[in-house]
Amino acid sequence: MQKPSLPKGTRDFGPIQMARRNFILETIKDTFQLFGYQQIETPAMENLSTLTGKYGEEGDQLLFKILNSGDFLKKVDLKDLSEGAAATLPKVAEKGLRYDLTVPFARYVVMNRNELTFPFKRYQIQPVWRADRPQKGRYREFYQCDADVVGTDSLVCEAEIILMIRRVFLGLGISDYSIKINNRKILTGISEVIGEAGKEGPLAVAIDKLDKIGWEKVRQELTERGFNDEAVQKLGPLVEASTQEIDHLAFLKIFLAGSEIGLQGVKELEETFEIMQTMGQDLAKVQLDMVLARGLSYYTGAIFEVKVNQVSIGSVSGGGRYDNLTGVFGLSGVSGVGFSFGVDRIYDVMEELGLFPQEDSQGTQVMLAYFDEKGFNYALNILTLLRAAGIRSEIYPDQSKMKKQLDYASKKGIPYVGICGDEEIANKTLALKNLTSGIQENWTLDQVIDHFSGV
Amino acid sequence: MQKPSLPKGTRDFGPIQMARRNFILETIKDTFQLFGYQQIETPAMENLSTLTGKYGEEGDQLLFKILNSGDFLKKVDLKDLSEGAAATLPKVAEKGLRYDLTVPFARYVVMNRNELTFPFKRYQIQPVWRADRPQKGRYREFYQCDADVVGTDSLVCEAEIILMIRRVFLGLGISDYSIKINNRKILTGISEVIGEAGKEGPLAVAIDKLDKIGWEKVRQELTERGFNDEAVQKLGPLVEASTQEIDHLAFLKIFLAGSEIGLQGVKELEETFEIMQTMGQDLAKVQLDMVLARGLSYYTGAIFEVKVNQVSIGSVSGGGRYDNLTGVFGLSGVSGVGFSFGVDRIYDVMEELGLFPQEDSQGTQVMLAYFDEKGFNYALNILTLLRAAGIRSEIYPDQSKMKKQLDYASKKGIPYVGICGDEEIANKTLALKNLTSGIQENWTLDQVIDHFSGV
Repeated sequence: MQKPSLPKGTRDFGPIQMARRNFILETIKDTFQLFGYQQIETPAMENLSTLTGKYGEEGDQLLFKILNSGDFLKKVDLKDLSEGAAATLPKVAEKGLRYDLTVPFARYVVMNRNELTFPFKRYQIQPVWRADRPQKGRYREFYQCDADVVGTDSLVCEAEIILMIRRVFLGLGISDYSIKINNRKILTGISEVIGEAGKEGPLAVAIDKLDKIGWEKVRQELTERGFNDEAVQKLGPLVEASTQEIDHLAFLKIFLAGSEIGLQGVKELEETFEIMQTMGQDLAKVQLDMVLARGLSYYTGAIFEVKVNQVSIGSVSGGGRYDNLTGVFGLSGVSGVGFSFGVDRIYDVMEELGLFPQEDSQGTQVMLAYFDEKGFNYALNILTLLRAAGIRSEIYPDQSKMKKQLDYASKKGIPYVGICGDEEIANKTLALKNLTSGIQENWTLDQVIDHFSGV
Repeated sequence: MQKPSLPKGTRDFGPIQMARRNFILETIKDTFQLFGYQQIETPAMENLSTLTGKYGEEGDQLLFKILNSGDFLKKVDLKDLSEGAAATLPKVAEKGLRYDLTVPFARYVVMNRNELTFPFKRYQIQPVWRADRPQKGRYREFYQCDADVVGTDSLVCEAEIILMIRRVFLGLGISDYSIKINNRKILTGISEVIGEAGKEGPLAVAIDKLDKIGWEKVRQELTERGFNDEAVQKLGPLVEASTQEIDHLAFLKIFLAGSEIGLQGVKELEETFEIMQTMGQDLAKVQLDMVLARGLSYYTGAIFEVKVNQVSIGSVSGGGRYDNLTGVFGLSGVSGVGFSFGVDRIYDVMEELGLFPQEDSQGTQVMLAYFDEKGFNYALNILTLLRAAGIRSEIYPDQSKMKKQLDYASKKGIPYVGICGDEEIANKTLALKNLTSGIQENWTLDQVIDHFSGV
């Protein structure tokens, strides 16, 4: 007999984890829908031609490839064996598992561009797979949870992303967090005004580390990356200002006075905030972060990142605006903005902060227990009434000792047990035992139904 | 530029399909939860050692295998190439995609047997993958939707399966269908009383075809399969009775009088029906089918199958009791009973019968449209009020012609557009246009909120 195991880096989700994950996902879905986003799903498998080359060389390595069906060796010859895996791969595998939800979404938009209504607001919640080295908090299968609007450059979308993030965290009960926002154009502007136009890439990589390694080391890195002394010098005031509680918009207007694109970035941020104001919303939790860069390579406008304070975990949500989502598939000019929630990290944060609701909103509300055949029959009858009233309920299926029945309910996290003894049968009542407090009371059926269907 | 495509046999689900699929899945989930079933999820990938040999030789062929990461050729030598794909497979692939939800569930139960509370009632709704030849209605990725109870042989479970099926179909609006039920022990009994004990396998395969090919051809097949003339003769009355509207239980008690196990099967069916009666339930839609066999190989008790009448599609739900789910993983004595819904087929049935609700219960309820900057600002303000009342709403993000805005709403299936013109702004109202009827009326904000939040 084999002892079964799981592939490394993968997980089962049992009932308790599922209830908690569902709580997070339902909160997110509910918010996406409130804002007019529509759900789509794409297949787990994509053609390797769709996936390869989209995630850099490292990403290509981390794609899970699916062996062709049937005689997968039929195209392989001796020469391939000597040339190695990379040369042989195209002959044995044509498909791979999706690596993220962005590339499949881009493919979907291109393939359906004639049927879709633009602006197209979609959300997508599905697992993705990466052949990463498994480690604490990093898995080979995990859920992504993305929302994007494509086909508009209206800043209403940026404002609504902030509102959606705030609504989700309110719903989850996470209150101490920051929504950091920046704009790619501001980073471009900074590189212009310090005299290193076009080098916002390496600039961003370096100053992104300010938090961790400090300004001295960032200076060094910039010098190593070929920034001249004057440029590094000019950056000083910005770095200093970024940590101070001043009006960063006002600072940037002066700092970026010489860069048209930089000022455009500032204007976009201002307009986003103005839209929020028109909506009657404040800027609570929103924090302009002049050095936020995050996946700079394909963002062209707003950049978002959400961090939960006082929990040492990376960002739990992030996103930004891009100009050219679908260009790689031959459809140019599709501008969009999107963001995603890191469900696994949010789960860990909520566990650490003890924020999951005590009661499982999808779990059994009351279990019926009994001593004998007569009680069993009474319980079966009651069960029908409870379920007709929409009360999630069950009967212990086997005639067993009361202790065993109560143990079952308790281990399953069922909050109440309705005991059906002779007295209850005679009076048409239930002896309702609260398994948390241990208190047991006699309730009429109407009382039971009113109580639970009101929950 | 490459033109993107989907791997054959796979599908994207767009917003309309997702809304409809969600309607089906939510109806099913709601019922599973009402009856105390808890959700689990298992990984898409399983070790090939978990999957191989569980689905017969054909099934092994249909497993999607995942190429090992990194240098997948490192263990392959020239000898393997000459021996072919089957010999090389174990050296290049250790994992496969799940083929159904039953084997992963069995693995889960074995791996978690010390933590689980038995009887364990679980449901699971996830995609599975099979390298089948794609054809109409058959896909390489499709959802399964299973519920099982393991660790009890109480017939309450069988009775509840009937109730769950009826509740789901009631919720979906499918009214003309039959729940066929049989018991493996009855089939065993039949083979005993016709003098061919132990041959219920081939017997079942043959008589399962009665509907399609008729008794004459079934007779022939039985003879070819080695049943003697006397046995075939004895089967005659049962076949005749199976198509007649008589009391099949009463018939079976006489027909199976000489078979202890056969009578046990009859008794189990009777008890199941008695439990339903005690629950105050009738036997509507339930039909004893003495020749129903369905996947006989591992069922040991009840066998279920659901067919929608007047729609030519296979069964839309089915299941049965089994004795030894986890034996293959070294844990014996785990009895259980389970069933599943065929989501794709149910989708097709509902489409054919026009049963999907007109309105998408997760879609935008009202879109705000406007003529100019002033209207845009008014709309932004209203949007906050609507969303605060939980009304799924959106604003057309770009300042465009009214026709374009209305087209967008119409194509997206949004039922109402709230137009924000000068008059509406002055009176703090909305010109609410019903896109189905074309009727436009002026509503106060309170009226709008009352109307939509009551929906």
